[in-house]
Amino acid sequence: MSKLKVLCYSVSIDGFGAGPNQSMDTPMGIGGMTLHGWFLPTKTFQVMHSDMLGGGTTEGTTGVDNDFAVRGFENIGAWIMGRNMFGPMRGQWEDHSWKGWWGNNPPYHTPVYILTHHARPSIEMEGGTTFHFVTDGIEAALKMAKANANGKDIRLGGGTNTIRQYLSSRLVDEMHIAVSPALLGSGESLWRDINLVELGYECVEYVPSEKAAHFVFKQNKKL
Amino acid sequence: MSKLKVLCYSVSIDGFGAGPNQSMDTPMGIGGMTLHGWFLPTKTFQVMHSDMLGGGTTEGTTGVDNDFAVRGFENIGAWIMGRNMFGPMRGQWEDHSWKGWWGNNPPYHTPVYILTHHARPSIEMEGGTTFHFVTDGIEAALKMAKANANGKDIRLGGGTNTIRQYLSSRLVDEMHIAVSPALLGSGESLWRDINLVELGYECVEYVPSEKAAHFVFKQNKKL
Repeated sequence: MSKLKVLCYSVSIDGFGAGPNQSMDTPMGIGGMTLHGWFLPTKTFQVMHSDMLGGGTTEGTTGVDNDFAVRGFENIGAWIMGRNMFGPMRGQWEDHSWKGWWGNNPPYHTPVYILTHHARPSIEMEGGTTFHFVTDGIEAALKMAKANANGKDIRLGGGTNTIRQYLSSRLVDEMHIAVSPALLGSGESLWRDINLVELGYECVEYVPSEKAAHFVFKQNKKL
Repeated sequence: MSKLKVLCYSVSIDGFGAGPNQSMDTPMGIGGMTLHGWFLPTKTFQVMHSDMLGGGTTEGTTGVDNDFAVRGFENIGAWIMGRNMFGPMRGQWEDHSWKGWWGNNPPYHTPVYILTHHARPSIEMEGGTTFHFVTDGIEAALKMAKANANGKDIRLGGGTNTIRQYLSSRLVDEMHIAVSPALLGSGESLWRDINLVELGYECVEYVPSEKAAHFVFKQNKKL
C-alpha cells in the first residue's frame, strides 16, 4: 500500500519550515538555509548535487543525518509539492520558461505533482522527472501520484503550507521532521493552529545527531 | 550582574509547555508530564524529590540531562513564577491554606516571587523558601527578586504565559529549553506570536541526549 510521507523536512526550534520573504535569491526565505545544516554535508545530498551539475562526487558525511537523508529517497515512486516550492513566482505563469530550481536533471527521477491554481502543460525533464501541474486540489494530486507511483510511496516535499493542508486532512501517513538548532522568529509555522494529537499523530522515533534532532510521527487514526 | 534565566523548561515538539486542562490531578495539564521524561530520572531531581519527602536518596542518572538539571539550580538567588505554577486555583484566594505543590520544604530555598492579581501575605516555608505574592507586574517582581538574590541569578520557573511575558519585554537573559519527543497538540504554546529573532534571541548551544534535545538561547539586544 503506497504511503504519503513527509521526509527530511527541516524546521527551526520555534517551528518555522521557511523564513519570511522567499525570493529568487532566498528560495528558503530569510534565514531558511540555516535549517538545512544537517542535510547539506551528507553524502546523499553531496552526491545528488554533484549529479545535478554533471559531477561525480562520492564524498559526504555518513551517520545519523545521512541515514535519514537516505530514507528520504528510498522507495519513492512520485512526489507532490506546492507551487511555491517549485518557484518564487506567484499568480499566473508569465510564460513557461521556469522549470524549477534544479536545472535540466532534477533530483526527483519520478513524476512530480505540483499544486497550483494556474494550469500549465506538463514538462518532461532529463533523468525521469516529469512535472505535472494539478489545479483540482490536494486529494486529486494524491490520487494521481498513487496511480503513477508503481506501488511505491509518495513523498510530499513541501512547503509548509502544503504539508499543513495534507496533515489537516489526515492524509500524511508518516512525517520525519528535523529540528535544527536555530530560531527564525517568523515565516511559515508548521505547528500553528494544527492539533496533531487530535488528528491522530504521535511521535514514534527520536534520533538526535550533532546537527539536528530527528523526530518521526505516524498517523494512527486514518479516516 | 544578576541575570534572569529560564532553565530546564520542557516543551513538546509542537511547542507546548503544558497540556490543556491543568487541574489538581494534572498539574502540567493533560499529557504535560510526558515533557519531563528527561528530568525526572536525573540524580538532581531524584535527590531533590527525596529531600522533600525526608528521604536521603543519592541515586539517579548522570550525563547530559543531569548536567542541565544541575545548571538549573546553580547560583540561583531567587525565583519568579506565575500564579498558575503555584497552584491550580484561579481568581480570588478562597483562603490561605494552599502553600504550593511542594510540601513544607519546597525545592527552592530562596525567596520566590509569585505573580498574581490577588494579594496575599508572604508564606515562610521550611528550608529557606519564602513565597511572596506580587500584584504590580513582571517588572516589579524582577526588581524585588534582584534586590533579594544576593547578587545571584534569578530563575524564572514558568508557566508558559509568564515566560512569554518576560520574553516579550526582552527581560530574559538566557533560556534553556528541552524539546521532548512528544506531541501535545494543544495547551500553552511557547512560540506562538512571539518573534524571538526580532526580540534579540539566538540559539547559542545545542546538546542532544537520548531523552530530549537541549537548546540554549541568549538575548543580544537588551533594551
